[in-house]
Amino acid sequence: MFKQISILIYTLESSLQMFNFNNLMIKKIILPCLLFSAFFASAQQNLVQYVNPIIGTSKMGHTYPGATVPFGAVQLSPETDTLSYEVNGKYNGDVYKYCAGYKYEDKTIVGFSHTHFSGTGHSDLGDFLIMPTQGKLQLNPGTADQPKSGYRSAYAHANETAEAGYYKVKLDDHNITAELTATTRVGMHQYTFPKSDQSHIILDLMAGIYNYEDKTVWTYVRVVNDTLITGYRQTNGWARTRTVYFAMSFSKPFKSYGRKSYDAKQAYRGFWGKFNQEQNFPEIAGKKIKMYFDFDTKEGEQVKIKFALSPVSQENALQNMRAEISGWDFNKVKAQAQATWNKELNKIQVTTSNSNKVNFYTALYHAFINPTTYTDVNGEYKGLDQGVHKAEGFTNYTTFSLWDTYRALHPFFNLVQPGRSNDMVKSMLAHYDQSSLHMLPIWSHYANDNWCMSGYHSVSVIADAIVKGTYNGDPNQALDACVVTAKHRDYEGIGYYMDKGFIPAEKSGVSVSNTLEYAYDDWAIAQLAKKLNRTDVYKEFIKRSENWRNNYDQASGFMRPKLADGTFKKKFDPKDTEGQGFIEGNSWNYSFFVPHDPTSLIEVMGGKKKFAARLDSLFSMHLPDEFFAHTEDITREGIIGGYVHGNEPAHHVAYLYNWTDEVYKGQAQIRHILNMQYKPTADGLGGNDDCGQMSAWYMFSAMGFYPVAPGSDVYSLGSPLVNKAVMQLENNKTFTVEAINQSDKNVYVQKVMLNGKEITNHSIKHADITAGGKLTFYMSAKPKK
Amino acid sequence: MFKQISILIYTLESSLQMFNFNNLMIKKIILPCLLFSAFFASAQQNLVQYVNPIIGTSKMGHTYPGATVPFGAVQLSPETDTLSYEVNGKYNGDVYKYCAGYKYEDKTIVGFSHTHFSGTGHSDLGDFLIMPTQGKLQLNPGTADQPKSGYRSAYAHANETAEAGYYKVKLDDHNITAELTATTRVGMHQYTFPKSDQSHIILDLMAGIYNYEDKTVWTYVRVVNDTLITGYRQTNGWARTRTVYFAMSFSKPFKSYGRKSYDAKQAYRGFWGKFNQEQNFPEIAGKKIKMYFDFDTKEGEQVKIKFALSPVSQENALQNMRAEISGWDFNKVKAQAQATWNKELNKIQVTTSNSNKVNFYTALYHAFINPTTYTDVNGEYKGLDQGVHKAEGFTNYTTFSLWDTYRALHPFFNLVQPGRSNDMVKSMLAHYDQSSLHMLPIWSHYANDNWCMSGYHSVSVIADAIVKGTYNGDPNQALDACVVTAKHRDYEGIGYYMDKGFIPAEKSGVSVSNTLEYAYDDWAIAQLAKKLNRTDVYKEFIKRSENWRNNYDQASGFMRPKLADGTFKKKFDPKDTEGQGFIEGNSWNYSFFVPHDPTSLIEVMGGKKKFAARLDSLFSMHLPDEFFAHTEDITREGIIGGYVHGNEPAHHVAYLYNWTDEVYKGQAQIRHILNMQYKPTADGLGGNDDCGQMSAWYMFSAMGFYPVAPGSDVYSLGSPLVNKAVMQLENNKTFTVEAINQSDKNVYVQKVMLNGKEITNHSIKHADITAGGKLTFYMSAKPKK
Repeated sequence: MFKQISILIYTLESSLQMFNFNNLMIKKIILPCLLFSAFFASAQQNLVQYVNPIIGTSKMGHTYPGATVPFGAVQLSPETDTLSYEVNGKYNGDVYKYCAGYKYEDKTIVGFSHTHFSGTGHSDLGDFLIMPTQGKLQLNPGTADQPKSGYRSAYAHANETAEAGYYKVKLDDHNITAELTATTRVGMHQYTFPKSDQSHIILDLMAGIYNYEDKTVWTYVRVVNDTLITGYRQTNGWARTRTVYFAMSFSKPFKSYGRKSYDAKQAYRGFWGKFNQEQNFPEIAGKKIKMYFDFDTKEGEQVKIKFALSPVSQENALQNMRAEISGWDFNKVKAQAQATWNKELNKIQVTTSNSNKVNFYTALYHAFINPTTYTDVNGEYKGLDQGVHKAEGFTNYTTFSLWDTYRALHPFFNLVQPGRSNDMVKSMLAHYDQSSLHMLPIWSHYANDNWCMSGYHSVSVIADAIVKGTYNGDPNQALDACVVTAKHRDYEGIGYYMDKGFIPAEKSGVSVSNTLEYAYDDWAIAQLAKKLNRTDVYKEFIKRSENWRNNYDQASGFMRPKLADGTFKKKFDPKDTEGQGFIEGNSWNYSFFVPHDPTSLIEVMGGKKKFAARLDSLFSMHLPDEFFAHTEDITREGIIGGYVHGNEPAHHVAYLYNWTDEVYKGQAQIRHILNMQYKPTADGLGGNDDCGQMSAWYMFSAMGFYPVAPGSDVYSLGSPLVNKAVMQLENNKTFTVEAINQSDKNVYVQKVMLNGKEITNHSIKHADITAGGKLTFYMSAKPKK
Repeated sequence: MFKQISILIYTLESSLQMFNFNNLMIKKIILPCLLFSAFFASAQQNLVQYVNPIIGTSKMGHTYPGATVPFGAVQLSPETDTLSYEVNGKYNGDVYKYCAGYKYEDKTIVGFSHTHFSGTGHSDLGDFLIMPTQGKLQLNPGTADQPKSGYRSAYAHANETAEAGYYKVKLDDHNITAELTATTRVGMHQYTFPKSDQSHIILDLMAGIYNYEDKTVWTYVRVVNDTLITGYRQTNGWARTRTVYFAMSFSKPFKSYGRKSYDAKQAYRGFWGKFNQEQNFPEIAGKKIKMYFDFDTKEGEQVKIKFALSPVSQENALQNMRAEISGWDFNKVKAQAQATWNKELNKIQVTTSNSNKVNFYTALYHAFINPTTYTDVNGEYKGLDQGVHKAEGFTNYTTFSLWDTYRALHPFFNLVQPGRSNDMVKSMLAHYDQSSLHMLPIWSHYANDNWCMSGYHSVSVIADAIVKGTYNGDPNQALDACVVTAKHRDYEGIGYYMDKGFIPAEKSGVSVSNTLEYAYDDWAIAQLAKKLNRTDVYKEFIKRSENWRNNYDQASGFMRPKLADGTFKKKFDPKDTEGQGFIEGNSWNYSFFVPHDPTSLIEVMGGKKKFAARLDSLFSMHLPDEFFAHTEDITREGIIGGYVHGNEPAHHVAYLYNWTDEVYKGQAQIRHILNMQYKPTADGLGGNDDCGQMSAWYMFSAMGFYPVAPGSDVYSLGSPLVNKAVMQLENNKTFTVEAINQSDKNVYVQKVMLNGKEITNHSIKHADITAGGKLTFYMSAKPKK
């Protein structure tokens, strides 16, 4: 009960602070009044209790269990291993496995670092690893099988707590309890030490995720005084050129400190050698550096750390720290983090089983982690041009895993986070403005683009936001950016695509999936152009959106690689996932990828009946266990028949039944996927959560609708899993979904009513939701044929 | 004549711009009026004609011949070789020899880079080497003996022009004429090409001075459009962590461009490989990068480049460029640079032989190169804490070679550049404020300290400026910074020095010179404290200033290393320069290093007669040619007897005769040094110019006085070389030195009159000069005994 009140207080506090009331006024006058009324009037539930950050940390989920706040710049989480640790000249760990730094299966913890992707299939980050130890100082992390050979420690899940905004673990080898929480830009650590005159805090500046020998380009550290350190680290990782600045503050002065340099050589030691730079020397720079700070601790003494990040400067990091956390009350910061989460989670209140609630709110939690804030409290951020910019009137975000997230996550934001969606579009357009390539982001993080995966799906996100009315900038400028990006002839076969309407198989190993994705993106551009009455653009791009037809092979009935001479490639197996013209998928899945025009697809594929049968085959075919083993991001767990849910390209496919006369099959299949692919366990996710895309699919589908073609204002109806969902929209309207006669067996929809009026086209419009109202599904165990 | 008028116009223009008159107003109204009167009233002479930047470029001078403006941030100069060029895995070149990048003896030019130290004995810099070529593109510089094996070119001195602010050379192998000029923060290149469809401009981002394999830590380049490039480069050189940002603009669009990466490996090529990043790819980052830009050129076509630097950002570099050079009129920029020089040179107008004028004005030119401007036009600069700061009310300077320059260069600034001296002191105190070590600069450049050489001579510079009234900040704060620096127990034996009054020889190889230099510095602090009535500080430091006595060995009559137990080190040869307790010198020279108390030194050394005889011995002793060969910075050319003028520690020694009864010997010796050590030829300097210290010695001595102990307001008189010198002071007073009956033989002073009143103590005070007036020396061929 106390917890709930304190969450409420912090929610109110933070809301009020947004209106710039001063703190004293808030505490003494406004808060007590509001609190009184809010306590009785508020419908806010304690939903943080249903979030289990452990979900997805085993096997393929690639989520992390540590502490973060919604869309926070800091993701403070334990590393159980990464590729980062060089032991006897060899790296241990599995680079793909450790995308999030933590694997539930592991028995040891290496330390706690401040940046993590959530659910990705490639990685980077893992900045500023901190590990508390005691006893003999060890700067090597040691190995998982011999944790005592280094600073790492054994731990047990029994002594581990992971909550939204809070993480706690007992580090057995050091007899230290570690607790973590965070604000948007600051991680807070609380370490409870035993009595020791050899207590240490290690700051490993060489550690990182997806590390390799030369990933750390440069490190600078400044020991300002005996409680404050500032500095920065540059990496050449997945982000080619990336600098993260930090400010680190201790609750207690260290008694001594030092650094060890692992640089093979350093120029000009001559006069630098005047100082013993290894110990208590405050101006540190080099490529490979580890630091340690020594303390005497009493039994049960807590040493706390505030660790702030900035993309811009040490000064900004310090400013972020001072703005976001005053004092050393860890529990207060934790309560504030959880109140913030609770407020966000309450945007959708669902009625369903506890286990479904855990799935739902953990999905909501995972959906609200990425993209991450990439603006300092003073509004400054680093742009793609590596210059410092000021975000005027918006929060700049980074970490756009767009090939994944354009499908359901950004549409989900347009529904429940329209304000942030607006800012995300602005962030993408700022990226465009700063791009010497004149391209919108493809897969961008920390002022870099790594161009991962295919398509130019920024245009889908932008079109969807503008079509749905969530973007308040200049839409014509946004359209121009989309058009320029889509005409970047040098990029990934766009030139061929523009000239021929397809990409010759000789020119690209992913020629077909690119053509299909471009065609969809072009359709999204056309929708935007239509809305803006830009007829020329509309005509050009609606024509391009038909290009999927050029890869459709009437003979085989599949999307198939085409050669430059216009003939289809001879060697072709639609099940094959390797080098057959498709990225992370096969023709069986990708042949359904015409989300913007299922009707035409069905037509070329021989009509509704044949098409439904193909869908049946996809979901029921038998593939040997190891079939997808050689394709990145696809594993056994994520597969139903030949349908791959653990990866994105077919995420809309179950909804395509709506275009056939066998709609009920989709309903059953959606419920099957919901139950099979999402479980409230560490290994509960059937594939990479991919920055929330898997989670967004879950929430849409659990509520009974899904955006098959973002850029359209239409959602296709499915089969809701929850009994009831109440969405509190930012426009203060409420939209309720109710599933009457809901049960695990009653997966078939008999009737759907919107505000009392029956829906027969298996869809609703975005405006239907934003207007507020009620969508009622009547469920049954019997298919409606 | 035209040249002189145009210089005058630019001088006036720039002066007026300082008062913020708008340009049109200046050009149409004020300028013509002023020009008319100025042309007749101004006493400004064409003194640029006497500057020969070639002086010192041969042998030991370590000066560079390229283009810079007074105290400019850009020093655009040719490199004939450096250690930077890896050819077949080996570095060629001699690292010490190429401190300034250019050796007169060399037959080839590698390119033109934008940053150079002037006259140092260690180096760094050489940023952003540009080379125009034509024919087959070569990105390797090639070797001096086979210039055609790379992009370098043969050249002849006959086709070379070096002037203050202007450099021109014909690049024979490419048939290209290169011309360089500069503003404070922008270098301007003008390349006259032959007809060619394979004309190139190479930007070698791996080149550098004192380069080594890993010196370049990171490079980022952004091709904004077909005439504008921005970026930055980080180095780990003598400055441990240093970033220089640039903006580069072409007068003509390039037709294509490319880069070559010499990085052994780069992470995550996967999706980056979507682009051909080698050609026409605008977002470039890596450790080892060279770029090229291709042009078609007509016969005689000029391609011009503006290349701006910033310590802060690409944006600032661009802002610097736009603020300092509009348009593409190379001759206008050159005329402006030369007008600026002429204005500075006219601060002292001397009457003497042409060859002496060349020496004098080249010395003045060399004295006005370092320290260099380290502030962008918007007032921003990078601080020692690697953060961006704004210089409020001053220009921030860098490149403080203080062990050299505290002796005569900074005192010279207090006389003829008091405004800049004020800013330099402020720059040093800003450095102190940003120092985690809480130390004033030792040898600082580009937001780093390399702690080169010994002493803490910032305190001398600060004391001298405050004693002479040129510092307008808070003097007590300045004193505090001096005191904290002087008590930094960890630094170079200061702890021992404070506890014992000397540094035990066991603890340091330079124990004696350190003690001597600290004692002098402490005296300077005491002078400052006295002026501020800080009695406690005065007492403490005047006591410390006596510490030179602790290393004086009565038995040998020399300064001698002392062991921890208080006994003198047994093995001792006062001529020996190696490991005998002295830095870059021997006891013979260093035993005279009590500039603040010659009277006491003479006393302990047995009185005036004995002391004069020792001075005689120093100047007349015979040392074998190779004697100093193993001591850095000391060479045959810089030696007179055992006196080393080519290096600094004995620079005051000739003036010590003033404390004896044989003053005339000093007069002769000073004239001897002036003639022997300074010649108007490429090899005319007897030692490293050391950022202008050698030059400042020349000018003081040529005018007949010298600051033996900076921090005191007294100058010792010598024997003027010039017939007349008129100093135009910033307070609008004029101080004239005249040498009646001056000639090469008449080196002895018979009488000196200050404003008609005879001087008998061989000295004048700073206030005597700043009050304006006239100092008249009556010269004779006969010594006045």
